[in-house]
Amino acid sequence: MRTQVAIIGSGPAGLLLGALLDNAGIDNVILDRVDRQYILSRIRAGVLESGTAAMLDHAGAGARMHQEGLVHDGFSLSFAGRRHRIDLKGLTGKSVMVYGQTELTRDLMDHRERLDGKTIYNAKHVTPYDFDDKPYVTYEKDGATHRIACDFIAGCDGYHGVSRASVEGRGLEHFEKIYPFGWLGVLADVPPVDHELIYANHTRGFALCSQRSLTRSRYYIQVPLEDKVEQWSDQAFWDELRRRLPRDVAEAMITGPSIEKSIAPLRSYVAEPLRFGSLFLVGDAGHIVPPTGAKGLNLAASDVHYLFEGLREFYAEKSNACIKAYSGRALARIWKAERFSWSMTSLTHRFPANGEFDQKVQESELDYLSSSNAARTAMAENYVGLPY
Amino acid sequence: MRTQVAIIGSGPAGLLLGALLDNAGIDNVILDRVDRQYILSRIRAGVLESGTAAMLDHAGAGARMHQEGLVHDGFSLSFAGRRHRIDLKGLTGKSVMVYGQTELTRDLMDHRERLDGKTIYNAKHVTPYDFDDKPYVTYEKDGATHRIACDFIAGCDGYHGVSRASVEGRGLEHFEKIYPFGWLGVLADVPPVDHELIYANHTRGFALCSQRSLTRSRYYIQVPLEDKVEQWSDQAFWDELRRRLPRDVAEAMITGPSIEKSIAPLRSYVAEPLRFGSLFLVGDAGHIVPPTGAKGLNLAASDVHYLFEGLREFYAEKSNACIKAYSGRALARIWKAERFSWSMTSLTHRFPANGEFDQKVQESELDYLSSSNAARTAMAENYVGLPY
Repeated sequence: MRTQVAIIGSGPAGLLLGALLDNAGIDNVILDRVDRQYILSRIRAGVLESGTAAMLDHAGAGARMHQEGLVHDGFSLSFAGRRHRIDLKGLTGKSVMVYGQTELTRDLMDHRERLDGKTIYNAKHVTPYDFDDKPYVTYEKDGATHRIACDFIAGCDGYHGVSRASVEGRGLEHFEKIYPFGWLGVLADVPPVDHELIYANHTRGFALCSQRSLTRSRYYIQVPLEDKVEQWSDQAFWDELRRRLPRDVAEAMITGPSIEKSIAPLRSYVAEPLRFGSLFLVGDAGHIVPPTGAKGLNLAASDVHYLFEGLREFYAEKSNACIKAYSGRALARIWKAERFSWSMTSLTHRFPANGEFDQKVQESELDYLSSSNAARTAMAENYVGLPY
Repeated sequence: MRTQVAIIGSGPAGLLLGALLDNAGIDNVILDRVDRQYILSRIRAGVLESGTAAMLDHAGAGARMHQEGLVHDGFSLSFAGRRHRIDLKGLTGKSVMVYGQTELTRDLMDHRERLDGKTIYNAKHVTPYDFDDKPYVTYEKDGATHRIACDFIAGCDGYHGVSRASVEGRGLEHFEKIYPFGWLGVLADVPPVDHELIYANHTRGFALCSQRSLTRSRYYIQVPLEDKVEQWSDQAFWDELRRRLPRDVAEAMITGPSIEKSIAPLRSYVAEPLRFGSLFLVGDAGHIVPPTGAKGLNLAASDVHYLFEGLREFYAEKSNACIKAYSGRALARIWKAERFSWSMTSLTHRFPANGEFDQKVQESELDYLSSSNAARTAMAENYVGLPY
């Protein structure tokens, strides 16, 4: 088989790229080691920057998002019981769209199926080859080894995927930061306590009130890395969450049985560079952010933006200038988002190694934010997404 | 002897308070354990916020500052050889005034002498008493013990002074942060390399190009805490400084023999509260900032602003509401300045414990600053001084 762009990974990054390439008449094949149902069973967050939402529209798969997604014009920070709203819309003219990553993935898959886009699920042992010269990808399926010749390989297969693994030792640099805590998350079919998100910094640790829809809530609390999810009954979770929220929020919160409960570690990670010949690392394959500020999916979308620009230019204008610029352009925006995610995490979490001075500095930052239009604007413009 | 306000310490805070009280017809006495000449021999920085400069004017001692001080409308950040200017005037409408603290102190002393203000130099063992009820201060001079009865005691006697020591154990809380490096500073009679300040973040460590006048420069480099000043010849200092600056700056720099050379540790410190009955902690007696961002003298001035408001109101309107609010109002602004000084220090210095990820985040912050008007405005508004 031959295609122009082989895309490894059928998550949001690979699907979004595939849809944009289809629009531009560029042939592409998506390979995934698992099947559609497995991919759609993954629980992920979903706060979309306006640029990400616009890309979904541009890809032709934004209709349901506009029907079911929740437009958020702001969010709240709560420190020491005081609450302060960051007016995203007022400060930047932009909003964010709350729409679960699973739903966005489903929409992109349905869109691809309607257009008869080629996706090979259950493709085992996908491997990229010869991306310095005549790239191709091999995979195994139904007892046979298959080969797809291509011009480019887009590695959209996440942190544990084969794409980054295949460029190890070729000058790949790693930058990483581990945080001394995790997030215990609960998904429940209860109405969200607020129509916007609330990020709470409390002496007992961070808490986040978020939502997937008007009837499904997602709540998180900071927990020690050693904690096991079995230690946390639903009741213990709700009790601890309430302790960390302002009293009026805690009292208004409606609780219910968890339909999902898990602990995730927090990590910052960046690989450099993101291009090796004709192979590109895109999204989680190249970088991870802690979830505070919800940049993960949005960074995948901005990578896709830069890569699509490069591929479009290559086929339409026979120039590879934009392709060569991919790594630098993507990384410049990635590092700003890494900085913001680190900074939102530092601002809102309790660090075991921090002394009382650091806690006071955290509190003074909220004081400062509440008094400074410039500081609120800087936070808001990062939250809604810096320009591409 | 009896006065209305006994001021311990004849540094800028005590002198500024004394001048404002004189203006308002409130009787005051300044006590200092050393003499005028000793006080004026101390080398200190001097970047005045516009509010601090306005207070000096208001005190009636600003004439020479306007003649000899250098108005700076911006400063530069240099990271990895790139330089970016923060346009203070353009972003905030305000400038800063570069005028040595020693000169400001001299002007206030001269002003006080012209008005026959009472200052007792060489007052040994100054001690505040009974500030919950009928406050008085004792001191020893010329072999005798003297006593000054007063309504209020302003502790303007610095970090090592008797004022804070006298309230230890009375519910005083301490918040402190030590930094794992110091500043090696050189004063030299050479023209400054730039008409504005340059804060440089280099892989070898922080450097700062600053100035006292058009013919006197003050340069600093970050050094390990263990370093001794004797290890650093003038030549070694200039060589190391040049390595940390952008090439054009390094090449343009004129060097010369040091007229002062010293290593200072960096520390963040805040005492809470700042009022104990009729005793007030003012300036360094209550808090210390690392010198990055030059907030020390300016915070002393803002403390004086809040305290003077309280004392003026007490005598003019027989109300002590403002006096009772002193600690809270002063601390709210102090903590914001502590946050900013910590943040400027974190942004510009190399921390031995930091990994490569943290360094990349530092660099991305400069990238972000250079692309965001809001981020530059937030930095600039802190640098020129947040409103009182």
